[in-house]
Amino acid sequence: MNLERWRTIADWPLTAAAFLFLIAYAWEVIGDLTGSAAAAAEAVIAVTWAAFVIDYVVCLVLAPRRWRWFYTHLLDLAIVVLPALRPLRLLRLLAVLAVLQRTAGRAFRGRVIMYVAGAVALLVFTAALAVLDAERSAPASPIHTFPQAVWWAFETISTVGYGDFTPITETGRLVAVGLMVGGVATLGIVTATLASWIVERVAETEADERAATHGEIVALSAQVAELKELLEERAAS
Amino acid sequence: MNLERWRTIADWPLTAAAFLFLIAYAWEVIGDLTGSAAAAAEAVIAVTWAAFVIDYVVCLVLAPRRWRWFYTHLLDLAIVVLPALRPLRLLRLLAVLAVLQRTAGRAFRGRVIMYVAGAVALLVFTAALAVLDAERSAPASPIHTFPQAVWWAFETISTVGYGDFTPITETGRLVAVGLMVGGVATLGIVTATLASWIVERVAETEADERAATHGEIVALSAQVAELKELLEERAAS
Amino acid sequence: MNLERWRTIADWPLTAAAFLFLIAYAWEVIGDLTGSAAAAAEAVIAVTWAAFVIDYVVCLVLAPRRWRWFYTHLLDLAIVVLPALRPLRLLRLLAVLAVLQRTAGRAFRGRVIMYVAGAVALLVFTAALAVLDAERSAPASPIHTFPQAVWWAFETISTVGYGDFTPITETGRLVAVGLMVGGVATLGIVTATLASWIVERVAETEADERAATHGEIVALSAQVAELKELLEERAAS
Amino acid sequence: MNLERWRTIADWPLTAAAFLFLIAYAWEVIGDLTGSAAAAAEAVIAVTWAAFVIDYVVCLVLAPRRWRWFYTHLLDLAIVVLPALRPLRLLRLLAVLAVLQRTAGRAFRGRVIMYVAGAVALLVFTAALAVLDAERSAPASPIHTFPQAVWWAFETISTVGYGDFTPITETGRLVAVGLMVGGVATLGIVTATLASWIVERVAETEADERAATHGEIVALSAQVAELKELLEERAAS
Repeated sequence: MNLERWRTIADWPLTAAAFLFLIAYAWEVIGDLTGSAAAAAEAVIAVTWAAFVIDYVVCLVLAPRRWRWFYTHLLDLAIVVLPALRPLRLLRLLAVLAVLQRTAGRAFRGRVIMYVAGAVALLVFTAALAVLDAERSAPASPIHTFPQAVWWAFETISTVGYGDFTPITETGRLVAVGLMVGGVATLGIVTATLASWIVERVAETEADERAATHGEIVALSAQVAELKELLEERAAS
Repeated sequence: MNLERWRTIADWPLTAAAFLFLIAYAWEVIGDLTGSAAAAAEAVIAVTWAAFVIDYVVCLVLAPRRWRWFYTHLLDLAIVVLPALRPLRLLRLLAVLAVLQRTAGRAFRGRVIMYVAGAVALLVFTAALAVLDAERSAPASPIHTFPQAVWWAFETISTVGYGDFTPITETGRLVAVGLMVGGVATLGIVTATLASWIVERVAETEADERAATHGEIVALSAQVAELKELLEERAAS
Repeated sequence: MNLERWRTIADWPLTAAAFLFLIAYAWEVIGDLTGSAAAAAEAVIAVTWAAFVIDYVVCLVLAPRRWRWFYTHLLDLAIVVLPALRPLRLLRLLAVLAVLQRTAGRAFRGRVIMYVAGAVALLVFTAALAVLDAERSAPASPIHTFPQAVWWAFETISTVGYGDFTPITETGRLVAVGLMVGGVATLGIVTATLASWIVERVAETEADERAATHGEIVALSAQVAELKELLEERAAS
Repeated sequence: MNLERWRTIADWPLTAAAFLFLIAYAWEVIGDLTGSAAAAAEAVIAVTWAAFVIDYVVCLVLAPRRWRWFYTHLLDLAIVVLPALRPLRLLRLLAVLAVLQRTAGRAFRGRVIMYVAGAVALLVFTAALAVLDAERSAPASPIHTFPQAVWWAFETISTVGYGDFTPITETGRLVAVGLMVGGVATLGIVTATLASWIVERVAETEADERAATHGEIVALSAQVAELKELLEERAAS
């Protein structure tokens, strides 16, 4: 079995594990669980974690150039090993968005907009969970409920930054930097898609000119064909 | 009567209803009405609401594939049913902007800029009304007058976000998220329009080159025509 | 004398008046003048104001379609009549930037960058003066010195908006909205210029392909010419 | 020896000096050194400073048009003379990024993204050092540790600007303005690169049309060649 085949096999189970992780993580963080409920959520998270560990180890074993794979997949290792990076496992759910987008019609720009909206929603939700998880235990932090965390995530990804809620823990600030990067990327993609659309609309007026050039080539081609017929007639005579 | 025909008939009455709603809503919120004045404003709002309800029901009845229409118009339902989403009825006024823009000359980019300016003004005004309506009753909120609400809306749509005024109610924060989305879209459209203009100005220097290619095709065409004449002369001789 | 001719005559005197106004206004605001110094600065400002009034009246008289000119130049009237809009007279100095840029070489994008840098500097300086003028007399305002005002202007035009300094007067907030619009426009122009540059660099790889098409046309043209010579030789034989 | 040759010789030594300066400066600022450690760091900084001074003087002496070089390199003079601008010496390390990028494959957009990521990292690190150096001695400043300074730098370059940390010294605010400019430029480059990519993807559908035009030219060329053969056959007969 090679790496490609493993990836095909592991694709959906891993996405399911990420989805399970999302539910258990959201339940644990939003519900601020204690006792047996917390234990159950942690058990589900541990199982999904095991799925990611198995995938990492199998990929490492199957990779043709193992050291190269190891160096180019350090982030995967960090996501598996560091508990603080757990929320990044949800990035796998972006693959689900890619599937949804496939069914959403053919227009490239329409799909980009849908994908951006889905990615922003996932990013805001994940970041709100992660920041609440990190900040809740810090008494000096202003972020103590899930709605506050979601509000903060919107403030940050849009780069508005009122400053009524700001993370004070290192993990919370790491989440914030991730959201800032996501915000800059989102703004970039929205602008770029609009730019592409406007450039095209403006170019439509120039299309007439190009059509004219095309028309000239067609006319020239007809002239040459006519000329050839004329010569063939003479050759036949 | 089919759906298309109903839409044509209902277009201007609904826009008028939206305009009436804008006036009554602005009067009620800015004036902080009580007593009979408040009742009068509420009566006008109820009438305009009835217009939107009638339009929704008629469209649902006339739609050829009713369930599909229902699924793809859930936002319309929410605007009609949820009082918190009332201000979104003003989005219909964007249609008026589209008409104004039709009279504003032919340049595509010029019309985009005018439309963006009109949409931003409408968005800031509506958001200021909605946030003042939501925040006024919250004693801890810093937003208590209409000028403060307008100032806050400008801060938010430009993504500056000083933080001197921030909404604290859920409705107010929903309005803020809408403004943030509007701000990102506005920035995107402004940038994209400027990009289209700069790309075109830079391309003008390349136009010479293309003109040269065009000239070669014309010269070639002339050569072929000359050749054909030559052959025809010989055929006649 | 017609309007065009008046504009040519009045161009440099008005720019000089704007420059004088800039110096007197900056001297008055930064120096927080009192007594005879304030009177002197106000006298200079009054003289420059007279220049703008004269220009407005002469233009209105000379305009071929007076009412149309009046409607399309309402902003010019407001700048002349409303003391709060005095700083907008400095926009005339952007014309000087246009001249400077003419000497700065031929590259369109290079000139755009220079013009943007100059306009941002002028905008920040003017806005800092205007906000300081408006906020100084408000005891609750945090903006009381010129360096604070400049710092606030940079915060605002970059849309960072820390919130350590925020205007509280209506005039100050109007200045802020102007700066926000300037910030969005600046971001748009910078992005658009970079986009134009990157699109061109990427297009260079596609240029080879186009060059190939061009080569084919040249080859075709040569073939046709050769064919014509061949026919002429035969006609001569 | 001419200026070009000196630049080639001095390139790597100066980059090494900048790197040494980075290490000594970071060590001094982060470690908040006192006593002999501070003296050692200052000594290293003095040595690297000497390298920059020597480079400046030699360039000035070797420049063919000395006054012109002096006028167009005033920033270089300021970096050498003003201690507050010391951190700008690290800009030389961007040259190292340019080398790294050369080895990163051929795709222009991929290299732009890598270069931007490297430049942002360098800018955030340098700005955090510079602002900590400036603000630490101001008792009223909220920035007192390196992690706080890094967090503030990220807030500023992304234009989020919560306002939980803001510089209060003049040097600190100068650093902030530099970061704001860097943030606007970064956003511009990210957006422009994405725009270039999306425009290209959208243009792929138009490529078919262009390919058709190309096909017509090829067909025309074939027709003409056929015609020529036909004539040559007749000439031979």
